[in-house]
Amino acid sequence: MIRVGVIGYGYWGPNLVRNFMSASGSAVTRVCDQRKERLSSLGKFYPGLKTGTDSSDLINDPQIDAVVIATPVSTHFDLAMAALKAGKHVLVEKPLAARSDQARKLVDEATARNLVLLVDHTFVYTDAVRKIRELIASGKLGEIYYYDAVRVNLGLFQHDVNVIWDLAIHDLSIIDHVLPSKPMAVSATGISHVPGQPENVAYITLFFSSSQIAHVHVNWLTPVKVRHTLIGGSEKMILYDDLEPSEKLKVYDKGIDVTPEPEDVYKMLVSYRLGDMWAPQLNNTEALQTEALHFIDCIEHNKQPETDGSAGLRMVNLIEAAETSLRDRGRLIELQW
Amino acid sequence: MIRVGVIGYGYWGPNLVRNFMSASGSAVTRVCDQRKERLSSLGKFYPGLKTGTDSSDLINDPQIDAVVIATPVSTHFDLAMAALKAGKHVLVEKPLAARSDQARKLVDEATARNLVLLVDHTFVYTDAVRKIRELIASGKLGEIYYYDAVRVNLGLFQHDVNVIWDLAIHDLSIIDHVLPSKPMAVSATGISHVPGQPENVAYITLFFSSSQIAHVHVNWLTPVKVRHTLIGGSEKMILYDDLEPSEKLKVYDKGIDVTPEPEDVYKMLVSYRLGDMWAPQLNNTEALQTEALHFIDCIEHNKQPETDGSAGLRMVNLIEAAETSLRDRGRLIELQW
Amino acid sequence: MIRVGVIGYGYWGPNLVRNFMSASGSAVTRVCDQRKERLSSLGKFYPGLKTGTDSSDLINDPQIDAVVIATPVSTHFDLAMAALKAGKHVLVEKPLAARSDQARKLVDEATARNLVLLVDHTFVYTDAVRKIRELIASGKLGEIYYYDAVRVNLGLFQHDVNVIWDLAIHDLSIIDHVLPSKPMAVSATGISHVPGQPENVAYITLFFSSSQIAHVHVNWLTPVKVRHTLIGGSEKMILYDDLEPSEKLKVYDKGIDVTPEPEDVYKMLVSYRLGDMWAPQLNNTEALQTEALHFIDCIEHNKQPETDGSAGLRMVNLIEAAETSLRDRGRLIELQW
Amino acid sequence: MIRVGVIGYGYWGPNLVRNFMSASGSAVTRVCDQRKERLSSLGKFYPGLKTGTDSSDLINDPQIDAVVIATPVSTHFDLAMAALKAGKHVLVEKPLAARSDQARKLVDEATARNLVLLVDHTFVYTDAVRKIRELIASGKLGEIYYYDAVRVNLGLFQHDVNVIWDLAIHDLSIIDHVLPSKPMAVSATGISHVPGQPENVAYITLFFSSSQIAHVHVNWLTPVKVRHTLIGGSEKMILYDDLEPSEKLKVYDKGIDVTPEPEDVYKMLVSYRLGDMWAPQLNNTEALQTEALHFIDCIEHNKQPETDGSAGLRMVNLIEAAETSLRDRGRLIELQW
Repeated sequence: MIRVGVIGYGYWGPNLVRNFMSASGSAVTRVCDQRKERLSSLGKFYPGLKTGTDSSDLINDPQIDAVVIATPVSTHFDLAMAALKAGKHVLVEKPLAARSDQARKLVDEATARNLVLLVDHTFVYTDAVRKIRELIASGKLGEIYYYDAVRVNLGLFQHDVNVIWDLAIHDLSIIDHVLPSKPMAVSATGISHVPGQPENVAYITLFFSSSQIAHVHVNWLTPVKVRHTLIGGSEKMILYDDLEPSEKLKVYDKGIDVTPEPEDVYKMLVSYRLGDMWAPQLNNTEALQTEALHFIDCIEHNKQPETDGSAGLRMVNLIEAAETSLRDRGRLIELQW
Repeated sequence: MIRVGVIGYGYWGPNLVRNFMSASGSAVTRVCDQRKERLSSLGKFYPGLKTGTDSSDLINDPQIDAVVIATPVSTHFDLAMAALKAGKHVLVEKPLAARSDQARKLVDEATARNLVLLVDHTFVYTDAVRKIRELIASGKLGEIYYYDAVRVNLGLFQHDVNVIWDLAIHDLSIIDHVLPSKPMAVSATGISHVPGQPENVAYITLFFSSSQIAHVHVNWLTPVKVRHTLIGGSEKMILYDDLEPSEKLKVYDKGIDVTPEPEDVYKMLVSYRLGDMWAPQLNNTEALQTEALHFIDCIEHNKQPETDGSAGLRMVNLIEAAETSLRDRGRLIELQW
Repeated sequence: MIRVGVIGYGYWGPNLVRNFMSASGSAVTRVCDQRKERLSSLGKFYPGLKTGTDSSDLINDPQIDAVVIATPVSTHFDLAMAALKAGKHVLVEKPLAARSDQARKLVDEATARNLVLLVDHTFVYTDAVRKIRELIASGKLGEIYYYDAVRVNLGLFQHDVNVIWDLAIHDLSIIDHVLPSKPMAVSATGISHVPGQPENVAYITLFFSSSQIAHVHVNWLTPVKVRHTLIGGSEKMILYDDLEPSEKLKVYDKGIDVTPEPEDVYKMLVSYRLGDMWAPQLNNTEALQTEALHFIDCIEHNKQPETDGSAGLRMVNLIEAAETSLRDRGRLIELQW
Repeated sequence: MIRVGVIGYGYWGPNLVRNFMSASGSAVTRVCDQRKERLSSLGKFYPGLKTGTDSSDLINDPQIDAVVIATPVSTHFDLAMAALKAGKHVLVEKPLAARSDQARKLVDEATARNLVLLVDHTFVYTDAVRKIRELIASGKLGEIYYYDAVRVNLGLFQHDVNVIWDLAIHDLSIIDHVLPSKPMAVSATGISHVPGQPENVAYITLFFSSSQIAHVHVNWLTPVKVRHTLIGGSEKMILYDDLEPSEKLKVYDKGIDVTPEPEDVYKMLVSYRLGDMWAPQLNNTEALQTEALHFIDCIEHNKQPETDGSAGLRMVNLIEAAETSLRDRGRLIELQW
């Protein structure tokens, strides 16, 4: 039984507590938050829990095996580092840290101490994304031409991080998980519409070594919610619409065959390939439940998580590069991995 | 009665012929195309028409007042220039010309001869776009924050122009028509997935002097067709979905009010404004009919068309800049107007 | 502070407990269920609650002011009658009782004792239905021509009641709430696809004295979920789609004007009226919260609930008539009110 | 080469002319309509055609092999009978005739003279319906439980026939084509909202000998257009949405397995079967083209059409029974075949 302490009981904390409570193999034994009123709301639901406002008490509690961190981004590094140094396994909200140098130190610390460090790239644990990865890995899509994601809505404006850190990280971590190759360069544009606040609209292009491109569009200020991803392959194409209640994933047997048109020098003869569409049944397991069980499994069997510290570091690196590009209005930033 | 000659009877030509036939105030009297079999298919429907394969005959036909050009892009300049020099009014398919220097010469020639030069930026003549322009001009949307357009489908690959010239020009000309200010700079990315062929995916960001941004995503290779435009204003927002059969335009009384959150230093207090949605009734007039009548009206009353040569030139300038940026992977290109 | 006891902690019970817990003015103090394992799951969330398996203990608990009954239909009468006789106010799941004679006795008992009897016709308390009632009452729709509801999905098969008792009651109670007049007769058809089990498909037509008709289609066995209601008025029409996340209600300024066509004796000249569409903003308050507060308010101020015993009785009468008709394959059953 | 004469050049006539013009194996050589202005609009497109206002001239034209009748329903019998008696093959708009006795006489006359009589049940010739028939015939859906069709919109009000004759006939003829068994009885309800005019809303239930049911909902007065058909089988289920541009047909591997629930006497243990969805690619051939070619093929090879006079007679019989039931508010009418 893995005993879990949770730091931060704001928007996402209750989901983490609930999932580690219900996961077989773990129990939440302690929760801390600086805001007393949050703890009292917690007390109504879980009256037996130890609570407090001081995270050091929790981190140093010998009764705790793993620390889950769901606090503002700027605190991730200090809390995660303290927890690792106290010998705890750590699950930290995305992003892993506010800066890549911090992220790298966390990776190194976890490695040195042989502790599990899992970054909560939640979508990686959804049934839809796991199926996409499986389909791409199987080769059924053929060569991957492009990955295009739109994630926009009238969302909660953050004031410490921009919309890339808040929303695009979801798509970037999905891309990281499902595409076998890594981007070579990034170009991003965006804007802030609230003076003095971080960018609330961003467009990010990722360039790959092969003839592959990825693009992510995020926006906190749209009248309708859109979660729409297109993945084009030479053999098949995917539409992943996360708002569809039952058919989130549609696989199209569509594409093109290109040959020069003999009679018209101004046109290519494009023979469209129009085939069936297929929507695989997904289980609708809660992603956080899959992730909690995976964290426990990694701790118990000394495994590397699918979204380990290195994945978390890659995302921080990538977002830093995207931010640099955005602030320089699209300037190409080469990426090293 | 304006007597119209049409050069090019391929994909779009039949629509032009039909609309100038049915428009009161005009009649198509002559059509030419290099491909004889195209003309024989024309003969089945309009047996009385003069036809031929030589465009010079048509251009120099004294019985013709106006020349409509629906041929490949590379031929636009020569044909339009010849027609203007022969004293004909000209309607030319988008884009006005393959290069900005050519476009400028056409503008100058039309001005010098006091002839009407209309570029077929078709969407400008749709009821939806006219309503958008009206809503923005009325100030009801407030300050315009962003314009975001997606125009993707499994489309006809062109081999002489890329997807920007073919598809993005629609959105760029709508933006040109509905936004009062002009973009200051452009950054574009994209890729070709067919070796040796033009780019079939492109992402274009337009920067404006104010805190306004526009973005266009075009793609010839997607499994589903999307025509989805979001326009965000400080007071209201628009969703324009051209594939909706009856409610193409939805106006949302949604937005945000931003104030610092007193109790939580990590969050802004964003009070969402969530109001009614309203879908104005549109007439579903065929855009090309509106455009044909406008062309006739401009000829008869010596008016400047809404999509005149200058608008056509602006689009060619803009697309050239976008292409330069795309080939340099997002490098910012400043625009002069 | 109204002290509430809840009988039945199955599918719907947890929602009732949660809502009476969180409603200001009430607290759930006791819950009973025959299944001990249900109570233990309850204990995890609300450790302070009195629980037990014997409903009489709860009903006779002097510390309880109101009894909420969420048990199988066949038990509604006995439990509600016992609670009323013990002087408790009662909220009972729909339908009020399994037979109309039982329903009538409950109405009489509540009236005689001046106790609140509220039937949980949940949809009556949704923002969407309240807005529909308001729009109809305001006269903005004009004369109501028809009400057409579809409520189908791959749903939980019940074995004690058929799909009319389970699903159609929602639509019938909405109709009862929003239409000013009562149906005069009913004709229903349907079928069971599981041998020995109640009907899982039903079609119900309600006839009104005026030229008004209503129809309800319910089905437990469809591959997709549909919640689609059309309301046609002489002035405006409503589409109510309960699955739409944000625009559940659309009001169309559409209709017809009919005049004889002078030139063609075979056609009426129907001039369509095609106007704007408008989607009023709804609050998305949880219906059960509105209902709980209403129940408390009725108790505290001795008011008649909107869905009182008489409404519950009307629904049982109507469903009995529909069942009779269904089993006689559509035979018309006149209704007395 | 089958020489075709078309009687009636109103709403549907132009489509018939165009399709028999373009079909290889036929040509339209003569068209008649009582309204001269209709013929002049025809002359613009097909200047070589013989035209006139007298149908007898056309029917008795020895140069004509087949007569296509697209006139008001009340004239179908006289025109079709005259054409058969003149030895012509006949294609007649749906419904075959206004009364079943007339329809029977046409069937007998065609049989006696060995002439092809095809009724234009257009949807039978769509790719979607042909695929549905194929899927049902293959047994892949298992036992068919129900067929539910909704066909509603703000439609052209007819004054000579009601909405059943106008719209429901489409669904009834599809049902006739795809289901192997015939209905045993019918119950229908409906209403007219325009005084003195035919019913504009109707609900029709068809009972089959097996545990199968079908239902058709038609309405000329709805704010949105719906073409939504659900077909439930014991193995798979179909959603056929004719308004979907690309995926009109979705086949769901969904259903139920029913076993008594051991622990709860009030519930059946329904294990839902939730599997993949599959949308077969359809060709989007114009139905009328398929039908025209089929008509020609039947003439040339002396075959019986898929929608022959007998099918037309079945539909008239069925609609007469439905009308009788509707006017008696749902009274069950047994059907003889």
